[in-house]
Amino acid sequence: MTDSIKSLFLGPKGEHSALLEELVQTALADHVEWRRRFHAADPSPVNSDEDVSLGTVSNVGTLKNNFLQLLSRLHASIPAFSARYNAHMLSEQTIAAQAAYFATMLYNPNNISSEVAPVTTVLEVEVARQLAEMIGYDQQRSWGHLTSGGTIANFEALWIARNVLYHPIAAAGAAQELGVDLRVTLPNGSCERLRDLDLWQLLNVRPACALDLWDQLWACAPRSLVEKSLRDRSLATLGYQDYSRRLAAGFGDTLPPGVVLVSATGHYSWEKIVRALGIGANQLILLPVDERCHMDTFALWEKIVELSARRVPIMACVAVCGSTEESAIDRVDEILSIRAMAERKLGVTFHVHADACYGGYAASITRGAGNERQTAKEIQAALGVSHWPTEEWVRSVSALESVDSLSIDPHKLGYTPYPAGAFLLKDRRARELVAVDPPYLAPAVDDRGDSVFLGRFIFEGSKPGASAAAVWLTHRTLPLNNTAHGRLIASTVAAAHRLHDELGRAELSPFTAIRLPSPDLNIVCFLLVHPTLESVADINALNEAIYRELSPSQGKAAEYIISRTRLMSPAYDGAIQPVLGALGRDAQSYWRRHGAEGIVILRTTIMNPFADSERPDYTAGMVAAVYDAAARCLGRICGRSTASLAEA
Amino acid sequence: MTDSIKSLFLGPKGEHSALLEELVQTALADHVEWRRRFHAADPSPVNSDEDVSLGTVSNVGTLKNNFLQLLSRLHASIPAFSARYNAHMLSEQTIAAQAAYFATMLYNPNNISSEVAPVTTVLEVEVARQLAEMIGYDQQRSWGHLTSGGTIANFEALWIARNVLYHPIAAAGAAQELGVDLRVTLPNGSCERLRDLDLWQLLNVRPACALDLWDQLWACAPRSLVEKSLRDRSLATLGYQDYSRRLAAGFGDTLPPGVVLVSATGHYSWEKIVRALGIGANQLILLPVDERCHMDTFALWEKIVELSARRVPIMACVAVCGSTEESAIDRVDEILSIRAMAERKLGVTFHVHADACYGGYAASITRGAGNERQTAKEIQAALGVSHWPTEEWVRSVSALESVDSLSIDPHKLGYTPYPAGAFLLKDRRARELVAVDPPYLAPAVDDRGDSVFLGRFIFEGSKPGASAAAVWLTHRTLPLNNTAHGRLIASTVAAAHRLHDELGRAELSPFTAIRLPSPDLNIVCFLLVHPTLESVADINALNEAIYRELSPSQGKAAEYIISRTRLMSPAYDGAIQPVLGALGRDAQSYWRRHGAEGIVILRTTIMNPFADSERPDYTAGMVAAVYDAAARCLGRICGRSTASLAEA
Repeated sequence: MTDSIKSLFLGPKGEHSALLEELVQTALADHVEWRRRFHAADPSPVNSDEDVSLGTVSNVGTLKNNFLQLLSRLHASIPAFSARYNAHMLSEQTIAAQAAYFATMLYNPNNISSEVAPVTTVLEVEVARQLAEMIGYDQQRSWGHLTSGGTIANFEALWIARNVLYHPIAAAGAAQELGVDLRVTLPNGSCERLRDLDLWQLLNVRPACALDLWDQLWACAPRSLVEKSLRDRSLATLGYQDYSRRLAAGFGDTLPPGVVLVSATGHYSWEKIVRALGIGANQLILLPVDERCHMDTFALWEKIVELSARRVPIMACVAVCGSTEESAIDRVDEILSIRAMAERKLGVTFHVHADACYGGYAASITRGAGNERQTAKEIQAALGVSHWPTEEWVRSVSALESVDSLSIDPHKLGYTPYPAGAFLLKDRRARELVAVDPPYLAPAVDDRGDSVFLGRFIFEGSKPGASAAAVWLTHRTLPLNNTAHGRLIASTVAAAHRLHDELGRAELSPFTAIRLPSPDLNIVCFLLVHPTLESVADINALNEAIYRELSPSQGKAAEYIISRTRLMSPAYDGAIQPVLGALGRDAQSYWRRHGAEGIVILRTTIMNPFADSERPDYTAGMVAAVYDAAARCLGRICGRSTASLAEA
Repeated sequence: MTDSIKSLFLGPKGEHSALLEELVQTALADHVEWRRRFHAADPSPVNSDEDVSLGTVSNVGTLKNNFLQLLSRLHASIPAFSARYNAHMLSEQTIAAQAAYFATMLYNPNNISSEVAPVTTVLEVEVARQLAEMIGYDQQRSWGHLTSGGTIANFEALWIARNVLYHPIAAAGAAQELGVDLRVTLPNGSCERLRDLDLWQLLNVRPACALDLWDQLWACAPRSLVEKSLRDRSLATLGYQDYSRRLAAGFGDTLPPGVVLVSATGHYSWEKIVRALGIGANQLILLPVDERCHMDTFALWEKIVELSARRVPIMACVAVCGSTEESAIDRVDEILSIRAMAERKLGVTFHVHADACYGGYAASITRGAGNERQTAKEIQAALGVSHWPTEEWVRSVSALESVDSLSIDPHKLGYTPYPAGAFLLKDRRARELVAVDPPYLAPAVDDRGDSVFLGRFIFEGSKPGASAAAVWLTHRTLPLNNTAHGRLIASTVAAAHRLHDELGRAELSPFTAIRLPSPDLNIVCFLLVHPTLESVADINALNEAIYRELSPSQGKAAEYIISRTRLMSPAYDGAIQPVLGALGRDAQSYWRRHGAEGIVILRTTIMNPFADSERPDYTAGMVAAVYDAAARCLGRICGRSTASLAEA
């Protein structure tokens, strides 16, 4: 990667700290000047005598002492800034983000409303548009905003998907009440009268068609009447208990509860979300993955057929784009094709959400300098590399432009500090289904008449405008295309691929590295085996011990820092075969009997901007560190000394 | 207030900016030193030639240009730092918080887990204990953590309350499955066999008794079996739809859905929360308020009696402590007495949550230097004031120690930057009911064996450790008692009372100020009337115009900045009478007919640390600014010139 991108980060030795210091000083001085200009003629309420003796004021002394204590305690932090840190999804932040966050925090705007954040709410709208542009959403039709993180963004996706799912039922009731005859296009293409549909059909109206019903109702009756009629019939108003009773009374409902389909690689927060929303953990169906940890789209189709036969409504299907454990990117293009087939053949449809919290920014790799979408060949030429990305990869990532909603975390591959998640919605009309009007705040509007009273449409309340500014300045400095942001991410992918190759090639005897396939992004997963370790339990112990060796611990700076995960049955049944094959004869039966306990896998997230450095060569260094750690641990595992092992 | 507390804030003219600058510089230098010590022998991956020409690298130039643009755009921010800003709940932050946030952001820890935040997760635990100590929770039994804000904290409260409500049903089923005979104490004091209880009784077990069932089950059967049996029967697992069917099948359930009672002054986010959780907006019951905007506890009792007669379960009752519009603090002590009476007389109980997002920090006023709880007289002596706080006020605030859960926002009266909310739980066992185990992260434990893998028990995922550090350093510098933090808040209350008095006393002729009662904290609400304005619509127009005059607008620095709200029917029926009485003969009929449109009230939040200054005298200044604005506006309202009005 070019040094000019690296110069935007503080650097492993603080090489660019003068830049950050300059920006921070400029920001503080500028802020103070701004304060002074506000009613400049006012006297200062601060006693000037006190000012002179400021250093002796006891509170200030307490502050300074405690601040130094804080700085000292912070030294025990993990060195996430270093390319030797390859554990969790955490790395450097851009100087742009750090400086912008600080500069804006001095003003402390609250992005819930432009009334308390006239500047940063506009920046947040700009940021959401930049992300939408990168993904390929229509900027006029889509909508987005920042969240505290991926969990809330995913929560909002399902919150909205549920409301869209049940919207046709409310619309049918409202149409009846208002004496309006509506027509709706079903997934199989036929146009039917809304009043003729049964419950199953009402629950299988395409999201966009469901939202069209609104416009139709507004065209026939006063808006306030329509709103009230819809609201009175919504799940949000009635609550699940009364709603279920109404469905039973109105439709003789015997349909099972609606389900949510998620790749087995999905984050554990999806379980929190379905529990909290009242959907229930039982309704969260994990779809099997294939050897590359992608959602098995054949299995998806079979599941849809099975659910359809049992008349189980599908609330949403979640594609994982950059799984937290393997950075696997589901074949979004294929998932959308499967949905199209389900619509055509089965009359079944559902909301498709992409959990792109980790991988979403990789879409910047598909964009040329003028934001044009590029082919794999064009991207390779732009990046000056070969073999990667593949056409398949580009199709998966480009297909994000067609999902109904998407979550993406600037505080991960956006290289900005916490908190910064983002939620994007393809059809902005759907946000109206979750809108709550506060009793008094008049909604302000932005330059295209868009409400910037975010609180109306989002789940959270107060939120830092500083976060929006940090993301905004990072996007400005590192535009979301493959000359800048995309180039940075691609450089980490290249470093990850190099590590993957190196693990396959390096002389690790007497150990052998068993690798998961070359990753879609920048997380490399592998484990080490040794001929004397025959049981999976022993192999797990070895790799757990390697992980401990390569973790920060009291009083010593680890050589390299990695993380570990467990592949467990049944979630990883589809991905585990190559691993089991390499683990020896007992592995198959271990997986059948103890698969729920899992197999320990070493996991290295390569996202540092300096990961591709040749001097130091972090790739070679990490492989050597893994080997050394394994050699140190083996004795403990086998009850033999390391020395005797070296002879084995 | 003593200048030594004021010296902890930047000041209206940046009087103390040298302190912040020093701390920030120290933090950056210290952080860079820390980076350099990590594998000091490694060469730098940054090309030194590039370093020399850093200033000429185009990316850095882009960064600087865009940064300056950001600084320039930020100048259009609201002057929340100034004591002339009295609009929303936003003011100065402590220098401690600003410096700690910046210092910690350089490390960018993620407080979801101690594995990525070994330092700041401990600080978060410390902060939660400090808040618990201030409130009066037992530190061994309680638990707390920071959230992105009050909405999430309130959401977690109801999420947990729902799980506790249904826990006895799951326990009864588990006991039956495991062949265990359990006993439970009912609210009326009788001890019954769990298996003999009907659904209504199961839904009316005291929270602590419900959680005791767990210990009883563990004592009788292996923990994993108990857990599975409970999990299989939980609403979280089954989801509302199947759960309702089970209740119907198991108990012949004909009970209406559970409801949530909230003061009519409750924040609009409560509606978001009940909608999202699937409880339903229809199940949110707003309780009337009295003339002081406190929950009418007689009405609470009547509502409980009515719900009990209809066998409607009460999931929770929310006391508002520091309402967002009036800073009214509900009589928490009385609400708890009413619950005790409901338990005794009706066998009805429920979770009591305090939404103390705004007012919670006022509990620091009740604490002496040694953290001892003080009486009103002792507090008045400590603060050197008379008349305030009253014994009634102290009883309300002290009673927070007995609520089941509580939300409190450091980013409001804690004077720390966004994002910082907090959630506190009296009985830490309840958090187990919402725990989700991620498949692999091993829970780390703190010094008392407490898990610091927060992600297991909280709704959010990634969260900024910098926020915990900011709150921690503020608490350290301004301890939570009435010599420090409490003194600061009390000084703003005194300034608010002074403004309230001044509005009643000042010569505003031909206008008259109609005030809501003297506030419980520091938000003063009033409106201006004029003899020529006879209709409420005209009076609303005048006050709306005054609000516009005293708002920031393009290109001019407002004299003072205030906000406005609307008191609406039926929520404020109990508070409006004194206002209506002063608004003239048509007001009563206006309220009956148009009460839902409301009466415009000017709202001033007095929370600036310099609000009590005598030079400038912000109180007198604001009253004069309101008068001037009214005089300027009246002509527009009446269609007459201001000049002719002055003669009126």
